[in-house]
Amino acid sequence: MKTVSENACFGGVQGVYSHEAETTNCEMTFGLFLPAEAAQGPVPVLWYLSGLTCTHENAMVKAGAQGWAARHGLALVFPDTSPRGAGVADDEAFDLGQGAGFYVNATQDPWRKHFRMWDYVADELPRLLFNGFELDEERQAITGHSMGGHGALTLAMGLPGRFASVSAFSPICHPTQSDWGRKQFTAYLGTDQSGWTGHDASLLMAEHGFGGPVLIDTGTRDQFIDLLMPEALAAAIATRRQPAEFRMQPGYDHSYFFVATFMRDHIKFHADALRD
Amino acid sequence: MKTVSENACFGGVQGVYSHEAETTNCEMTFGLFLPAEAAQGPVPVLWYLSGLTCTHENAMVKAGAQGWAARHGLALVFPDTSPRGAGVADDEAFDLGQGAGFYVNATQDPWRKHFRMWDYVADELPRLLFNGFELDEERQAITGHSMGGHGALTLAMGLPGRFASVSAFSPICHPTQSDWGRKQFTAYLGTDQSGWTGHDASLLMAEHGFGGPVLIDTGTRDQFIDLLMPEALAAAIATRRQPAEFRMQPGYDHSYFFVATFMRDHIKFHADALRD
Repeated sequence: MKTVSENACFGGVQGVYSHEAETTNCEMTFGLFLPAEAAQGPVPVLWYLSGLTCTHENAMVKAGAQGWAARHGLALVFPDTSPRGAGVADDEAFDLGQGAGFYVNATQDPWRKHFRMWDYVADELPRLLFNGFELDEERQAITGHSMGGHGALTLAMGLPGRFASVSAFSPICHPTQSDWGRKQFTAYLGTDQSGWTGHDASLLMAEHGFGGPVLIDTGTRDQFIDLLMPEALAAAIATRRQPAEFRMQPGYDHSYFFVATFMRDHIKFHADALRD
Repeated sequence: MKTVSENACFGGVQGVYSHEAETTNCEMTFGLFLPAEAAQGPVPVLWYLSGLTCTHENAMVKAGAQGWAARHGLALVFPDTSPRGAGVADDEAFDLGQGAGFYVNATQDPWRKHFRMWDYVADELPRLLFNGFELDEERQAITGHSMGGHGALTLAMGLPGRFASVSAFSPICHPTQSDWGRKQFTAYLGTDQSGWTGHDASLLMAEHGFGGPVLIDTGTRDQFIDLLMPEALAAAIATRRQPAEFRMQPGYDHSYFFVATFMRDHIKFHADALRD
């Protein structure tokens, strides 16, 4: 593992590190915020999964998360959104290929050699983090934005017991029925849709639910709201009687100004769940 | 004036606007955060001047300022750092020309046609803002980072009575004696150093001081600290008995992670001064 940068930040350290990943078969970069408390021993961890076109960096510099994480003594992990590099398959569209891993393990060519973001985020990166830093594997929570909200919800429901709480900012909620989903699942997972259902938050919510608290925020003026389909997730939450807070925020759009506005609520939500 | 973008943000609006500026003889872009209170009438204003290589955008997305401004009902103005465009003089160095206006009015060719950032920030942009938005001209404060800290301090001391309070993050403190200053002042203002003294915060502090509170933060591990020369400003503050808080922050560097960390303190400091 290589240290790309470390900056003092809210009494802790905002680091950026890279490593050769086995799952994705390329060099991966991630951000890690460690609060001051990490100098004394393992701290709880909040995963933040980013959206389309983002790298590890966007949320790290734009979401305003570190101050609230520092207040609650939480670490923040910012993984990249896909494998990257000259030898990695890509597509001209912004919503397929590099920057658009969709947190699945691709089974189709040309993607399957590198696009194994589920395994990377669920297995390889955690192993690296819990071995290398003062992080408490027993106290994890997860959040994300847009495609990363999809990732947070599907990982949280797909790995029962792993995360104490899950939240999302303007998540892609129902990818098996949206152009943000069908196109990518076809490319990565193939046309047999039986492999898709484990990656659809609304289907997972209807079928399994989540064994902890859930917080979802979406802006009423989100320019991508027809692709996100929050109505599907809201219906699934209500039908299942899932303990959850589902909020439509008046006037907000899909941008990081929206994410930053409600970051305080999300971090407090996770800190409360991790304390219980 | 053209609206480039408007995003809901912490209950208010983060806008970006552009206009044809007479002072700089080109199109200029600025950011303006208006808190919710601006819908009811004029709100106080905090100016944020940015550093080398920055545009109006950097602080607007990375400094984490809007949440605190919203809490105190303050507007935030984010001007650009120089004139820009194909017809505007430039230099290959990152610290001269476009992105490096240094908040002076150039008197030398090829700069004098466009590089009039003092007049732009002191006169033209205020006129536009106070005519176009619900902002209270009688309640203004100013801050900035690095070159923008230099701008904030020199404007505050050069325009007595305009600003209730001034603060700076890792400001360039003594440009007449630093390579961040001598090079640019020679290019923009010429070799006659008598024209330089009105643009040196340490000299202005020694000579005039500031008629309100002053807050300065610099990181002990700032990688540019030898160019910033905070020791000159600290000595001038102490010698003059200027009411001020001058803080060396342990472990912090020159980055926006540092700025974001202490933004809360700075905005509270200005809000208190503007309330008095």
